[in-house]
Amino acid sequence: MKTRAAVAFEAQKPLEIVELDLEGPKEGEVLVEIMATGICHTDAYTLDGLDSEGLFPAILGHEGAGIVREVGPGVTSVKPDDHVIPLYTPECRQCKTCLSQKSNLCTSIRATQGKGVMPDGTSRFSYKGETIYHYMGCSTFSNFTVLPEIAVAKIREDAPFDKACYIGCGVTTGVGAVTNTAKVTPGSNVIVFGLGGIGLNVIQGARLVGADKIIGVDINDDKEEWGRRFGMTHFVNPRKIDGDIVQHLVALTDGGGDFTFDCTGNTNVMRQALESAHRGWGESIVIGVAEAGKEIATRPFQLVTGRVWKGTAFGGARGRTDVPKIVDWYMDKKIEIDPMITHTLSLEEINKGFDLMHEGKSIRSVVVY
Amino acid sequence: MKTRAAVAFEAQKPLEIVELDLEGPKEGEVLVEIMATGICHTDAYTLDGLDSEGLFPAILGHEGAGIVREVGPGVTSVKPDDHVIPLYTPECRQCKTCLSQKSNLCTSIRATQGKGVMPDGTSRFSYKGETIYHYMGCSTFSNFTVLPEIAVAKIREDAPFDKACYIGCGVTTGVGAVTNTAKVTPGSNVIVFGLGGIGLNVIQGARLVGADKIIGVDINDDKEEWGRRFGMTHFVNPRKIDGDIVQHLVALTDGGGDFTFDCTGNTNVMRQALESAHRGWGESIVIGVAEAGKEIATRPFQLVTGRVWKGTAFGGARGRTDVPKIVDWYMDKKIEIDPMITHTLSLEEINKGFDLMHEGKSIRSVVVY
Repeated sequence: MKTRAAVAFEAQKPLEIVELDLEGPKEGEVLVEIMATGICHTDAYTLDGLDSEGLFPAILGHEGAGIVREVGPGVTSVKPDDHVIPLYTPECRQCKTCLSQKSNLCTSIRATQGKGVMPDGTSRFSYKGETIYHYMGCSTFSNFTVLPEIAVAKIREDAPFDKACYIGCGVTTGVGAVTNTAKVTPGSNVIVFGLGGIGLNVIQGARLVGADKIIGVDINDDKEEWGRRFGMTHFVNPRKIDGDIVQHLVALTDGGGDFTFDCTGNTNVMRQALESAHRGWGESIVIGVAEAGKEIATRPFQLVTGRVWKGTAFGGARGRTDVPKIVDWYMDKKIEIDPMITHTLSLEEINKGFDLMHEGKSIRSVVVY
Repeated sequence: MKTRAAVAFEAQKPLEIVELDLEGPKEGEVLVEIMATGICHTDAYTLDGLDSEGLFPAILGHEGAGIVREVGPGVTSVKPDDHVIPLYTPECRQCKTCLSQKSNLCTSIRATQGKGVMPDGTSRFSYKGETIYHYMGCSTFSNFTVLPEIAVAKIREDAPFDKACYIGCGVTTGVGAVTNTAKVTPGSNVIVFGLGGIGLNVIQGARLVGADKIIGVDINDDKEEWGRRFGMTHFVNPRKIDGDIVQHLVALTDGGGDFTFDCTGNTNVMRQALESAHRGWGESIVIGVAEAGKEIATRPFQLVTGRVWKGTAFGGARGRTDVPKIVDWYMDKKIEIDPMITHTLSLEEINKGFDLMHEGKSIRSVVVY
């Protein structure tokens, strides 16, 4: 079949909108019509050529929502017309990791996903006979895409695609970091470094679970209004305080945050996040993806005196199990998404979405097919 | 009163055995006759002048066992003739940390303890009119010492002092790191870096809780026999394998240790310990005290993919609550101590104990009064 898609033919070039060839789903695979997709920093990271493992030509995009149109042989968990969110972190429920029940980092198709192909080792996309790679197992910048059955979460049909798509990455990463990874407890003090989309979702996750102080830290004062919109109780601009940011935050929380989150990707900030966690029990969660080669460091004394350093990917969420619950939370108004979708674009405008993100002018731009 | 003690008059000099003046217990304090004391690396660290906060002249020693001989006004939790273990990490049960139930790092007397004095700001020790400082709130290198009531754990009377004293630091630090901090689960794979006294106690802690593989890592082959004596199932000498120690350990455990422990104090080894923890859920616990100024580092990717970096002090044990239980475990033969006490000395021989430790010839030397 044919599908319209935005193709990244090479790094550091705009996406090109073309009509591609798409093979139908093979065994264990499903064909999904993508109805909407967010544009995430990770897409830009790859497109900008910063990901040494990035493959081209490829169809980027990993934050979508759509409808199953066809299923391959052996598929049992979804059927045509089901509404789904593609999962760049699948959930096979069979591998050592899934069965451990201690991690969401399913390994069943990791090797092929990293090579830009389906589990059988081949791509379903081609253009003029040339193979186009899948991206993060999703490729939501194509109107139609093929995914392994284990890489789609079935969601309720009344959830609007142009909002639910954000649950495919940003919302789940931020909210899930609070609920799954940190397991923030009611009455906790929470410190959030970086008030971009992820940071705002951490903030609303902290509000959801009944945190006490929810402190946002950002060097851009314009973020204060955004933070307060989603539950932030205190705002700190590190450039506008006297003295050290860690000491300032420790004083503000009478000892440090019970839970602190880095949503910046800056390894120096990751250290500040750890060191502003409470002596004895404070946990610091790394969410941001750091630049290649950068390392985090601290004195071991910080750990010996009780701080815990953790990280999270996809908010610790098991995709097929937890993503539908987050959709419910949105539909039940426990969390908000609508005000975070600052721009809605057509596929033809997708490069504008990247520009808005690079310029810091959007929280989230969504492409609607 | 008078007491015989080994005094550290200054750094980098042998201890001197002298008769000191000791004031009796003031309000909330107890007088304890120390019956036996271990000699720990931390004593040597201070005596060697490596601790920038070390105070002299002082009476070192923090790993003792003895008998309450007198109590000051207001003391209710112990009485004369009670057998006790002094606690360098007290347990007041009143401060924010104790009440949090999330940490053993009681803060109630931290400030004065760090200054070498009792909570009222004065020392009970003097020699020829000159103040001698307390050390870690314990000063077990004195036959009699004074401690705050909250800094003694009452233990059963049938426990032999010359073995129970080791529970005052090394045993609790190692076993408690397993049971309190890591909460190692049955069937787990455990990797222990450094097979000194702490490492051996981690090993027997892992055996106690039903770990599966218990892998010891040491550059000294002589440690293998010691490790196996306490439950180690595999021994790895990093200098005698081909390739990288982390990859070797990941292969040996089919993915990495569920729990890994650094008992070396070497920050490079701390990194190896983290990185040999299992992707998705492996936890690495820093026990060793690093050289001043040294930092730990890793790529944040290690955390984002599910590894957790923690530390522990005094094995996460709440002294008055948990130390008596560990004494029970010893008396019930759930853990062993006797073979670890490689040398028993008189107070006059205490400097020999330091020499044995520096030369790597002892697991633990104990001074019996």
